[in-house]
Amino acid sequence: MSAAPSGPGRPRDPEVDRRITQAALDVFGEAGWAGFAMETVARRAGIGKATLYLRWSSKELLLTDALTAGLPRVSDVDTGTLHGDLVELATQILTLYIGPGSRAALRLNLEAATIPGIAEHYARIRSSQISAARDIVRRGVTRGELPDSVPITLLVDTLTGGAMMHALTTPPDERATRLKAAPHHAQQLVTFLLHSVS
Amino acid sequence: MSAAPSGPGRPRDPEVDRRITQAALDVFGEAGWAGFAMETVARRAGIGKATLYLRWSSKELLLTDALTAGLPRVSDVDTGTLHGDLVELATQILTLYIGPGSRAALRLNLEAATIPGIAEHYARIRSSQISAARDIVRRGVTRGELPDSVPITLLVDTLTGGAMMHALTTPPDERATRLKAAPHHAQQLVTFLLHSVS
Repeated sequence: MSAAPSGPGRPRDPEVDRRITQAALDVFGEAGWAGFAMETVARRAGIGKATLYLRWSSKELLLTDALTAGLPRVSDVDTGTLHGDLVELATQILTLYIGPGSRAALRLNLEAATIPGIAEHYARIRSSQISAARDIVRRGVTRGELPDSVPITLLVDTLTGGAMMHALTTPPDERATRLKAAPHHAQQLVTFLLHSVS
Repeated sequence: MSAAPSGPGRPRDPEVDRRITQAALDVFGEAGWAGFAMETVARRAGIGKATLYLRWSSKELLLTDALTAGLPRVSDVDTGTLHGDLVELATQILTLYIGPGSRAALRLNLEAATIPGIAEHYARIRSSQISAARDIVRRGVTRGELPDSVPITLLVDTLTGGAMMHALTTPPDERATRLKAAPHHAQQLVTFLLHSVS
């Protein structure tokens, strides 16, 4: 299979883009930065190496785009209630760490600081996740759903860490089931944790 | 510096052993299994490659021994109270993921399944951690410190995940301080979580 290169004036094929993104996440997830090469990604995506180079001049840029396009975003959604907001956040984290980009997401935690050009990108992702969680908790305090003495960091650490641990302990043959059940598990996790601050 | 090889009848030098263990953990932590080579570990430890081969016939065996000797063990300690047992467990997890072997421990979560001979070893470590946590919670139920309706998995996931998240969000220049403060943070974490099941 070979893809049409998307030169100037040439529309991109979204199916090829999707395949490149997933191939880049797979290669990074399995082999890390040490094993991340344009050639390996091209082979995995079933396209020519030249096509990749037409779009990305370096593997740093390719990986950055793949992480941006391929990993589910963790961000603040205002559902109107603290419980609803936290369930949404926990569902996003479960989806990130159980879904098809999960190994790449875990690698990023481990290797981001040592990859040129990725460190800043990852720092931005992380701080937006942390501020999403903190904003949700602060809105809960403002709405009177939480006492203002609530230990924000502990609540955020146990929520995000509890979701991550559930994902880490998922056996490969249960991934699909647990991914579908993510909103349900998020409900249980949030109900459990909010009981400790009520 | 060169070390005396410990052939038959020749006592090992514990300082050399310690250096080899830390070098193996450092190399694995930084470069993963893909970058784990006897030669790299020997150079890092400041010993000859021949010395390493005298003791370990393969890099699988070297890594297994380094993980066993170098990573703090997470195990069940019966202090007499649920709170005390959980604080001990959380302190062990914080020490594992903030201490000098932390990157190796995180790598293990990610790569263990793909390293020949390590998968089984890691599965044993993991299941002993999980059963330590579950045994502690069950003793708490038996002692009447917890209702027997307690959601064991959620309590264990949020405790271990909350400790891991605290470690993951530790900036490099705060590692030493947070390592020393691990028992104190463990206290706060456990008090927070037990409030949710009381």
